[in-house]
Amino acid sequence: MARILVLGAGMVAGPLVRYLLDAGADLSVTSLDAAEAERLVGGHARGRALRFDLADDDGLSALVAAHELTVSLVPYAFHPKVAGHCLRHGRHLITASYVAPAMQELDAAARAQGLTFLNELGLDPGIDHMSAMRVIDGIAAEGGRLRSFRSYCGGLPAPDANDNPLGYKFSWAPRGVLLACRNAARYRREGREVAVPAERLFREMHLLHVPGAGDFEAYPNRDSLVYLDAYGLPGDIETLFRGTLRNIGWCDTLHAFGRLGLLDDRPREGGATRRAFVRSLLGAAEGESARGAATRRLGAAPGCLPAANLEWLGLDDDAPLPAGPRAPLDVLGDAMLGKLAYGPGQRDMVVMFHEFLHDTAAGGRRRTTSRLIACGEPDGDTAMARTVSLPAAVAAKLVLEGKLAERGVLRPVTPAIYGPVMAELAALGIDCLEETEDC
Amino acid sequence: MARILVLGAGMVAGPLVRYLLDAGADLSVTSLDAAEAERLVGGHARGRALRFDLADDDGLSALVAAHELTVSLVPYAFHPKVAGHCLRHGRHLITASYVAPAMQELDAAARAQGLTFLNELGLDPGIDHMSAMRVIDGIAAEGGRLRSFRSYCGGLPAPDANDNPLGYKFSWAPRGVLLACRNAARYRREGREVAVPAERLFREMHLLHVPGAGDFEAYPNRDSLVYLDAYGLPGDIETLFRGTLRNIGWCDTLHAFGRLGLLDDRPREGGATRRAFVRSLLGAAEGESARGAATRRLGAAPGCLPAANLEWLGLDDDAPLPAGPRAPLDVLGDAMLGKLAYGPGQRDMVVMFHEFLHDTAAGGRRRTTSRLIACGEPDGDTAMARTVSLPAAVAAKLVLEGKLAERGVLRPVTPAIYGPVMAELAALGIDCLEETEDC
Repeated sequence: MARILVLGAGMVAGPLVRYLLDAGADLSVTSLDAAEAERLVGGHARGRALRFDLADDDGLSALVAAHELTVSLVPYAFHPKVAGHCLRHGRHLITASYVAPAMQELDAAARAQGLTFLNELGLDPGIDHMSAMRVIDGIAAEGGRLRSFRSYCGGLPAPDANDNPLGYKFSWAPRGVLLACRNAARYRREGREVAVPAERLFREMHLLHVPGAGDFEAYPNRDSLVYLDAYGLPGDIETLFRGTLRNIGWCDTLHAFGRLGLLDDRPREGGATRRAFVRSLLGAAEGESARGAATRRLGAAPGCLPAANLEWLGLDDDAPLPAGPRAPLDVLGDAMLGKLAYGPGQRDMVVMFHEFLHDTAAGGRRRTTSRLIACGEPDGDTAMARTVSLPAAVAAKLVLEGKLAERGVLRPVTPAIYGPVMAELAALGIDCLEETEDC
Repeated sequence: MARILVLGAGMVAGPLVRYLLDAGADLSVTSLDAAEAERLVGGHARGRALRFDLADDDGLSALVAAHELTVSLVPYAFHPKVAGHCLRHGRHLITASYVAPAMQELDAAARAQGLTFLNELGLDPGIDHMSAMRVIDGIAAEGGRLRSFRSYCGGLPAPDANDNPLGYKFSWAPRGVLLACRNAARYRREGREVAVPAERLFREMHLLHVPGAGDFEAYPNRDSLVYLDAYGLPGDIETLFRGTLRNIGWCDTLHAFGRLGLLDDRPREGGATRRAFVRSLLGAAEGESARGAATRRLGAAPGCLPAANLEWLGLDDDAPLPAGPRAPLDVLGDAMLGKLAYGPGQRDMVVMFHEFLHDTAAGGRRRTTSRLIACGEPDGDTAMARTVSLPAAVAAKLVLEGKLAERGVLRPVTPAIYGPVMAELAALGIDCLEETEDC
């Protein structure tokens, strides 16, 4: 196989690097941290680890030119710059990020040069698109009509690693997880558009059962209605909902934390310990514990889960805080990082679930589900790393083998792309199981 | 006004008795317990308290004959017998119970004699029927088409009385509440019929926001599909859901209690204390607490809410149990009764909420909601007593005044009945507020 450049050696790149090396590629892996790139390459004969700073534009140009295809795992803001070099040198590009307008603008130029700029090839976005479109296209091919589409995804501890009362562990930075807890959202239910302000996000919850994985809390994930266009859904679809999955207890706890101001990212003074900081934030009375103040401020009963979780996280203990102002969100994030980390041998789990309600051409009604349940390997790759990075790895191989011949700025929403990518992912154990029943 | 017989002086009869006495009726109130009847009548000049056993058929016949109208608040199995005497003596009958087949069979005879046998005139059934049908008839009158109907009801502690981590207090016997936790259910969502086995009841939960009342857990209430016929709903209605409302935390706790066998009503031996009994039920290991065994059996994290609630209820303490076999459900019920009782001055709250999604004749889409939020009076009548008994009281008055002239075995689902009853209930502060918005 050909020469491939992998930009950015983050937490999820391991499976991609190994897959492409095993597939016979000559691989250059770059990182700001040389040791990280070297760890990923692992001394492989066809692998090269490079310390590289994206600010070096000439260097980037030379690197892109020297490889047939670039996989960009760096933050999405860099992708248009990388894509510019790919255009200049006639090189293919694969990313796991959403297509930004600056990327979309390159579509005609990429087509004109016969180049593939394939994006949104991770888990979410990525496998979600592919697994949903395979069902949606199948319904259309049978002359059916889609009436309702609900789609869920979550990265969670595997059941045997779910040993804390929040039901969650971090496979990436707490700050991103907590900032996402402040998103507003929008979806459609039975023909009615539902706008969810940020402070109501976790009250818009329902339980979802995923066969083989269990019961989860589901709450809306940003603006579901953008998927009308993205997936070419019928404009009159009755229900369109995208949700995030968490274990039971998460939503009530995070809703309460939001109400208490713990998701505020504005720094404030608050004292030398976590307890002092949280007591100050909550306006605790003399002698009142942080947990007690939280219970009172919530108007909740002693023994309620959110206040118990606040204490469990260590926000009512004497752990010292550095001097100076701190954002409540960071105090919370630091406490969570300490308590919600994976222990040795503990596995994560990725759960994706789609439900489609549709009419058949003959006038019947059907329910089709698609589900992916992937668990990490004990002390090996996480499910998150595998599901985020292997779609891009597989696509890179297919492009270079000429088996993925679409050109332009693309997302994996057409059978010519998702068909071969999903077939290879299934062979790697990342398999979306579809079931249909009359209803 | 005329002479009225009230059979059965239970926990909810107070507001009915006072309303009818205030309205000028001569009232006979019967109970197996003379003191209870006397307490209700309160020495009123036109009130008469009678100790009476329904097994006395001749006595019942004479009592029915001596009054123009009977309100039967006794268990529903007695209603056909009472109705038989009403037929014999040409007397009207009002009950708050569901119409059983044996009651329905009397329809033609009641009509022939010009008698009103009006049933299901409590809260649920009762106000739910009336408030729903007023909206449903209104939609039809405007040429609209109902696409979705979700209806919720719950009897709960008022927010200021919600001082325990289960979010619940008993306004009636725990056994009935706990037995209802073992019901299977059925509903329709977006054209799909969903069958819920008993052991999955509390996992079929979603949160519901009721403006002015707060956020609640909602889970399905028995067979929602019987309301297709009861309300004359369009057969192709997409969604039809009836749910029970509880405060947040209830469903996960009761689901866990069910899994642990605590809802089992088969007696078993288990030891001399609650802890011993529960440890025996859970197969606790040597030295393991009941809470610890529950956590382990649930595969849950230490600190999880259900096991914390088990301990909070006193199921892990040394409260003695009487000798002999006991049903886990009764051990749980007794513990709950002790911990989940209303204190002095604490109020209950009844919340009812309907949501209708409907098309207008002009092709628009609308959402109409109807909500009732009723709080009890501190140290006075509970909201439950008022909402359960006042509909029957109002109907009794209206029948005797000739303002409610429909005849036969009836339920309050027609405007001629619900119109005047709801108008009078609103004057008593039991007011269903309707709102409509385009969507």
